[in-house]
Amino acid sequence: MKLARVTGTVTGTVKDIPFSAQKMLLVDIVDADGNVLEPAVVALDVCSAGTGDLVVVTMGSAARLPNQTSGIGTDATVIALVDELTVGGKSVYNAP
Amino acid sequence: MKLARVTGTVTGTVKDIPFSAQKMLLVDIVDADGNVLEPAVVALDVCSAGTGDLVVVTMGSAARLPNQTSGIGTDATVIALVDELTVGGKSVYNAP
Amino acid sequence: MKLARVTGTVTGTVKDIPFSAQKMLLVDIVDADGNVLEPAVVALDVCSAGTGDLVVVTMGSAARLPNQTSGIGTDATVIALVDELTVGGKSVYNAP
Amino acid sequence: MKLARVTGTVTGTVKDIPFSAQKMLLVDIVDADGNVLEPAVVALDVCSAGTGDLVVVTMGSAARLPNQTSGIGTDATVIALVDELTVGGKSVYNAP
Amino acid sequence: MKLARVTGTVTGTVKDIPFSAQKMLLVDIVDADGNVLEPAVVALDVCSAGTGDLVVVTMGSAARLPNQTSGIGTDATVIALVDELTVGGKSVYNAP
Repeated sequence: MKLARVTGTVTGTVKDIPFSAQKMLLVDIVDADGNVLEPAVVALDVCSAGTGDLVVVTMGSAARLPNQTSGIGTDATVIALVDELTVGGKSVYNAP
Repeated sequence: MKLARVTGTVTGTVKDIPFSAQKMLLVDIVDADGNVLEPAVVALDVCSAGTGDLVVVTMGSAARLPNQTSGIGTDATVIALVDELTVGGKSVYNAP
Repeated sequence: MKLARVTGTVTGTVKDIPFSAQKMLLVDIVDADGNVLEPAVVALDVCSAGTGDLVVVTMGSAARLPNQTSGIGTDATVIALVDELTVGGKSVYNAP
Repeated sequence: MKLARVTGTVTGTVKDIPFSAQKMLLVDIVDADGNVLEPAVVALDVCSAGTGDLVVVTMGSAARLPNQTSGIGTDATVIALVDELTVGGKSVYNAP
Repeated sequence: MKLARVTGTVTGTVKDIPFSAQKMLLVDIVDADGNVLEPAVVALDVCSAGTGDLVVVTMGSAARLPNQTSGIGTDATVIALVDELTVGGKSVYNAP
């Protein structure tokens, strides 16, 4: 999985019915310091994440393992809201 | 998934029968500002996208989850036409 | 999928029986202008492609969807010979 | 798979029940000399790895092959603790 | 698949039983001239490859298609020993 920062939302016209009920988030993949590693990934969400949240995104077929995204054509899903990051034994991030 | 701009089409000789009925689009993976992140991805399409459209492309096995691409050897499918992008609470793109 | 130029062939000793009957092509992933994006991908082939041909390569589990590669441990298969590329409404490549 | 150094842990709010019982590690993908190739991968763990350990991470659907992660939406799992690396016939790393 | 040069071996403590019987090779992904494209991939092996060998590595779920790696959590397996590379009709590599 990767750390990601939710930057916004994507509204679209989706003709595939199972996919169409899902909210699409725009996220940047980041490191533990918040530096952007890969911008503009579009992810589904099973955590009710909002813009600005630091999250964990799972990719590939793993994105369809949660019940809520099962059978839906997603390759990226927000699977966790980050509460705390600990690096080298020190807390480096705490959710506001 | 990734944002992508449709740049053109690929016409080819395909010997695998399920694949051969599909239209292949040429797309550039882009960020929310339209900067190209990865050029020249070939994708199938379940949204009737056209050249110039901003779309969402799903990759890997997810590309075969829509009914229209089920069982077809694609690793990239246009799953949505982007109507609006919102970044940091502001609308940064609206489909023409 | 990705555009690719066939550059050569790989001859090898393969102990996995289903794989061993397959011809391995060496291809460079390219953009619509022929610039190399990723060199030296080894792909199976269901299109009888030859050195110099511009082709479409499908990757990941999609590479095993064609009948000819079903059950074979490939992660890249040439699924189409490119006849024509159209970018921005203009033809930019025609197969010789 | 890739070599990785465990750098820390991620604590999060996970709403997908099978995933929620798992500990998330933060790891950097490294080469045999310890140079970071890709920072900040979030991985599950079937080896009781700790911060500072050199490990092997398996990615994609392989991350769900171990019994402990079966059916859980992970795309990266620590599958081995590295005891020794041998490069060109010489031992270049031994676990402390 | 990708060309790779076997550089060494990884010895580890593996708690997942099906995986634990496997030898892990350290390989560098290379191009046809031997230039390193991606260092330090850890792969299983169904070809009895040794350090220095030029091999073909298959990645993702394809790595589990050979009988010997079926059901094992690998995302990279050496599927062939390269005997000869031919580029542009000329032989550029022959196994010693």
